[in-house]
Amino acid sequence: MSAPYRTRRRVEFRDTDAAGIAHFSVFFNYMEEAEHELLRSIGSSVLLQGDEGTTSWPRVAVSCDYRGAVRFEDELEIEVRVERLGEKSVSYGFRFQHDGRDVAEGRITAVYCQVGSAGLRSLPIPAELREKLEDFSAK
Amino acid sequence: MSAPYRTRRRVEFRDTDAAGIAHFSVFFNYMEEAEHELLRSIGSSVLLQGDEGTTSWPRVAVSCDYRGAVRFEDELEIEVRVERLGEKSVSYGFRFQHDGRDVAEGRITAVYCQVGSAGLRSLPIPAELREKLEDFSAK
Amino acid sequence: MSAPYRTRRRVEFRDTDAAGIAHFSVFFNYMEEAEHELLRSIGSSVLLQGDEGTTSWPRVAVSCDYRGAVRFEDELEIEVRVERLGEKSVSYGFRFQHDGRDVAEGRITAVYCQVGSAGLRSLPIPAELREKLEDFSAK
Amino acid sequence: MSAPYRTRRRVEFRDTDAAGIAHFSVFFNYMEEAEHELLRSIGSSVLLQGDEGTTSWPRVAVSCDYRGAVRFEDELEIEVRVERLGEKSVSYGFRFQHDGRDVAEGRITAVYCQVGSAGLRSLPIPAELREKLEDFSAK
Repeated sequence: MSAPYRTRRRVEFRDTDAAGIAHFSVFFNYMEEAEHELLRSIGSSVLLQGDEGTTSWPRVAVSCDYRGAVRFEDELEIEVRVERLGEKSVSYGFRFQHDGRDVAEGRITAVYCQVGSAGLRSLPIPAELREKLEDFSAK
Repeated sequence: MSAPYRTRRRVEFRDTDAAGIAHFSVFFNYMEEAEHELLRSIGSSVLLQGDEGTTSWPRVAVSCDYRGAVRFEDELEIEVRVERLGEKSVSYGFRFQHDGRDVAEGRITAVYCQVGSAGLRSLPIPAELREKLEDFSAK
Repeated sequence: MSAPYRTRRRVEFRDTDAAGIAHFSVFFNYMEEAEHELLRSIGSSVLLQGDEGTTSWPRVAVSCDYRGAVRFEDELEIEVRVERLGEKSVSYGFRFQHDGRDVAEGRITAVYCQVGSAGLRSLPIPAELREKLEDFSAK
Repeated sequence: MSAPYRTRRRVEFRDTDAAGIAHFSVFFNYMEEAEHELLRSIGSSVLLQGDEGTTSWPRVAVSCDYRGAVRFEDELEIEVRVERLGEKSVSYGFRFQHDGRDVAEGRITAVYCQVGSAGLRSLPIPAELREKLEDFSAK
């Protein structure tokens, strides 16, 4: 049975702008930090040294839709789901709420890659990692 | 006759990450800075005091697709087009190139709003501003 | 009996740069976040609505000395001490360690101010707040 | 005859915070960007591949004193002086003004280092680079 990964974070002062609210760009940092936390929770990392050398997850597409504003010290509840698991890529969906109110919905699509001196080379996601990611699948 | 707004910017050291390349999130800052530059070029601003009180352009949706990486001190050529001009909203399309090579394509959709003590209220884009924005239209 | 305020935080990926280590400027964000956490721990905030209207703590001087580097996912132990408590200002000292190794030492001096339409006006720190801050004094 | 290096930059929207002014931490990014511009102006870089392998300038101490606030779209005039040139280190002094009014004064002390797989090793600053830096000396 699958369930989203859940975490929380507070809007820091540096995350706000002169309009008095969290700047739209910081949601991408929040998404990435939640993704990295999810990976750590299954014993992995966005930057890994292993059998395949150094592997990482460069992003190919990201997006965010905004439903409402949040302010300094507001606490966000974040849900992360694996929306699509391809042979070499994963799409995470993120849902941000504050006090039960929808704030934003975002997505990050990342490709599993070997990082070498000759650049990046995409690889099939290892079976064991794949299985663990499926636990957060949206279905 | 319409043409995109063109500007350039250098990848600063703080824009890079431990993978040695510009972090995906900084492209949203680059987009916003180019949008604000475009608005200044037509005598406007993303935060304006005028006949309608304080007006601003909160974002409702943003996205970016990445085609290649850039590094510290690389210079980016940026093109901004008005892709869609609604009654109360505008969608900008951004194209990033480095040395003639595609790096990223992004989009920001923003709504024209009055900023008051009671929050945000969307308004029709004033005719004069509308006309100037049409000069950057993609068609 | 006084003791430093202690907290921890992880170096996020966005905090690193192309040299592979946490960028020097992020330590100022870490300091500020620890300061705000300390203020919340005593029921206060860096931005407060109260009897004196809106009050805040603008910074007049900050500094940081670096002893060693930290990398992505390293965890920092942070100690905050009130090094000097003036009539209207406070100086916090910050000590950053990783795995028992010194990483950085910093300082923020902030002034207690009323924020009004006419700008900032410094005020004596209220007695009750003063007393709570003394609990973190270095002596 | 020596003279400071001069540059300008605009306060971007992302540089502001909910207090409506440029956040204190962004002055360190402004300083670093001015330093890198100075290095480029003399044909060097903060990250260089040359006879000595990869060399860089890690920071050992930084500070900033704030005299006044600046807001979104304000333009800053920045002066950079070489305040002290040691055998292996340099201290830059930065002065920020807006419309002839003092805004901030900062300092960065950096050490010339070879970056190798075994970490950082400080080196004497090469004579040619040294001579060029002396042109910006405060005396």
